[in-house]
Amino acid sequence: MSCIFCKIAAGEIPADIVFKNERVTAFTDLNPMAPTHILIIPNQHIDSVDAIVNDETARAAAECLRAAREIAQARALTGGYRLVTNTGPDAGQSVPHLHFHLLAGRLMTWPPG
Amino acid sequence: MSCIFCKIAAGEIPADIVFKNERVTAFTDLNPMAPTHILIIPNQHIDSVDAIVNDETARAAAECLRAAREIAQARALTGGYRLVTNTGPDAGQSVPHLHFHLLAGRLMTWPPG
Repeated sequence: MSCIFCKIAAGEIPADIVFKNERVTAFTDLNPMAPTHILIIPNQHIDSVDAIVNDETARAAAECLRAAREIAQARALTGGYRLVTNTGPDAGQSVPHLHFHLLAGRLMTWPPG
Repeated sequence: MSCIFCKIAAGEIPADIVFKNERVTAFTDLNPMAPTHILIIPNQHIDSVDAIVNDETARAAAECLRAAREIAQARALTGGYRLVTNTGPDAGQSVPHLHFHLLAGRLMTWPPG
């Protein structure tokens, strides 16, 4: 297992964990782009949205979205939040383990990059 | 039913539909921010990620992600794609019906807005 996000989910390397349950781990981004910038990942290794190919992976991805809601409520992100997930090189996917960026705490601009 | 995206999903107002199944409708964004810019919505009305509160809404959201993958494959978006969903005013949510922006066909920058 060489995937850095798998190791974070497994607790094998440190991260600032802000949410964790059976299916999902969330931790602060080391290069924050907003006052709140959290990465939400499935504990199960899924390469990207391109690997959401069956009910199990779809459920894991959906649990990431539910975690986003729970994090937003726990942190009282009443202004809302942007969720971003990158697939492939054009999008700038940096780690080949599905992750959703949750950004909040400032006005987000358009286009989204 | 006054929601514009519900009306598009129901076929009551026109849109450039690029994907449709029992749970999901996808259509081109009228103000494209990339060579490919598609909106993917659940046919069922869900306000935003904040309204993914049970298995039914989670499944509908997950089906949007699976549709993204299918659209990317059908269009041979081999460079990848960015998915963005906005919740609330800080994020710039413009229509209160859950929608994922699929952007592709150019290098996306960081931060994502």
